[in-house]
Amino acid sequence: MVPLEITPLNNADWKPQARLDKLQQQHPNASLPVLVIMALLDIMKDSKASSTFEFLEHAKAATTAFKQLPEKNASMIAGADLFLHPLKTHSEHIRDVEDWKKSIFALFEKRLAEYAKFRERAADKGLQFIKDDAVILVHSYSRAVMMLLQKARQGNKRFKVFVTETRPTTSGTKAAVELRAANIPAELILDAAVGSVIDRVDMVIVGAEGVVQNGGVINQIGTYQIAVVAKAANKPFYAVTEQYKFVRLFPLNQEDLPIASPPYFASSEDRNTIVAKNPQIDYTPPRYISLLFTNIGVLTPSAVSEELVKFYMS
Amino acid sequence: MVPLEITPLNNADWKPQARLDKLQQQHPNASLPVLVIMALLDIMKDSKASSTFEFLEHAKAATTAFKQLPEKNASMIAGADLFLHPLKTHSEHIRDVEDWKKSIFALFEKRLAEYAKFRERAADKGLQFIKDDAVILVHSYSRAVMMLLQKARQGNKRFKVFVTETRPTTSGTKAAVELRAANIPAELILDAAVGSVIDRVDMVIVGAEGVVQNGGVINQIGTYQIAVVAKAANKPFYAVTEQYKFVRLFPLNQEDLPIASPPYFASSEDRNTIVAKNPQIDYTPPRYISLLFTNIGVLTPSAVSEELVKFYMS
Repeated sequence: MVPLEITPLNNADWKPQARLDKLQQQHPNASLPVLVIMALLDIMKDSKASSTFEFLEHAKAATTAFKQLPEKNASMIAGADLFLHPLKTHSEHIRDVEDWKKSIFALFEKRLAEYAKFRERAADKGLQFIKDDAVILVHSYSRAVMMLLQKARQGNKRFKVFVTETRPTTSGTKAAVELRAANIPAELILDAAVGSVIDRVDMVIVGAEGVVQNGGVINQIGTYQIAVVAKAANKPFYAVTEQYKFVRLFPLNQEDLPIASPPYFASSEDRNTIVAKNPQIDYTPPRYISLLFTNIGVLTPSAVSEELVKFYMS
Repeated sequence: MVPLEITPLNNADWKPQARLDKLQQQHPNASLPVLVIMALLDIMKDSKASSTFEFLEHAKAATTAFKQLPEKNASMIAGADLFLHPLKTHSEHIRDVEDWKKSIFALFEKRLAEYAKFRERAADKGLQFIKDDAVILVHSYSRAVMMLLQKARQGNKRFKVFVTETRPTTSGTKAAVELRAANIPAELILDAAVGSVIDRVDMVIVGAEGVVQNGGVINQIGTYQIAVVAKAANKPFYAVTEQYKFVRLFPLNQEDLPIASPPYFASSEDRNTIVAKNPQIDYTPPRYISLLFTNIGVLTPSAVSEELVKFYMS
């Protein structure tokens, strides 16, 4: 109620990036939305708020700090929203701040235990789609996709995988090496060779940084054009993703994403700026996505919207 | 008529690759089909053939040597066919081999002088399509495309260019540097970022290694998927090409090209094989090509077929 009590929170430095980096080391397998929730819980544990209102304002300010990071992305927004939602919806019912804090922490303790199972559940949902002799194209390195492929191999499915190099991170190289180590034939291809191999491919499987409101996917740069090429060749395009990556964003186009738009043509700097200037992600509209394999089931893109409404209206 | 006279020719070593390499140094601006014709003329100048039949058999054997090079490609086939065609069609009318040889060399002297003007004429045909404030996406380094863009700039057109990096050669880097030197704003993008920028682009312009019978284009790997993405975004896709790159090939798909198909999944070699294993070219079917800017005019893909028939039936 008293603006002066709240204002300092907006200027407080919760070191969001440093917290995320530290949590990532401690939980190397956790996804970014989960790490954001963990970081926010850590911050809120130390809150000296003396009212639910103050606690909520505190939480909002901390959440905003994560959403405004220079490295912000769809995953962080998803995590921040997931954290803030129960605080917002429960704030009117409980007056005692200590009781409320306890119930919030208990809720997230339960949720974090659930979240830890999401990736494997999502991977399991995709298993039925991998048939013997399938040739699968994957892009970049996605832990959910790797889990799906490794589980399929453990289930004695025989299939082959093309992996895009995925410049500039070359994360596809890491994926190819791990797949081969798991006894899955994997071949690295140039990012420019997707068109060249698409006719040999039975399906494309990608991960996601975020799944937006219309069921579209925000993912590593290059995903969008692979989806376009797959559709032109009538090949199914699947995304494996945990539900905590569903995010209330509705991008209208490639420039309408939660990233700084690259300053193309801003200057005539030298040719070495390619990596810095290029976006790290792109947006694949739902019309290019056949199905999403998620922990809550195999979804069409339009079902994502329903799930988001269900969750955030509850 | 006497097989024993002819057989040795098939085993002769005309050192086709070494000849091409040397001619390329002497004529750095000449296209590959032109260099192939020059090389074949050099070889045939030394022919000791005593009959038109023998001369033709000699020419056929030498032409085959170029078509069977390990580095063979659509350009070489185009040049070899252009060379052999007048020999085949004229062989029945002339009996004196020395007169005939003279007329053949005179014909090609005239043609080579014409060929030298083809690139500039093709570039000129494209000028009308470049309007002020256009944003143009180009792939790889094409001399015909560079000439078109530089002439447009010299004609005081103001436009901007996105250039794909074009792994593994990174030839796009060379193009970006030259465009900037010509005072044209040029921005290098990742091969995977075509989808990300396509909405900002007004048109795509590429060169060609070869233009096949149905008007499709064989070009640097990545061209095909750019064309697919351009079509999905309703952006025109143009190819600038000299007529001597028209070639009597009719690829059915990406694997039906005059290159060794990469040995995907042949072994589990290490990840460093990416460059060696990936094809250098791909095939863009005519349905993705809006227009071709050629020395004989602005053509639809289907007009290429007519021109090929006209030339090879004459």
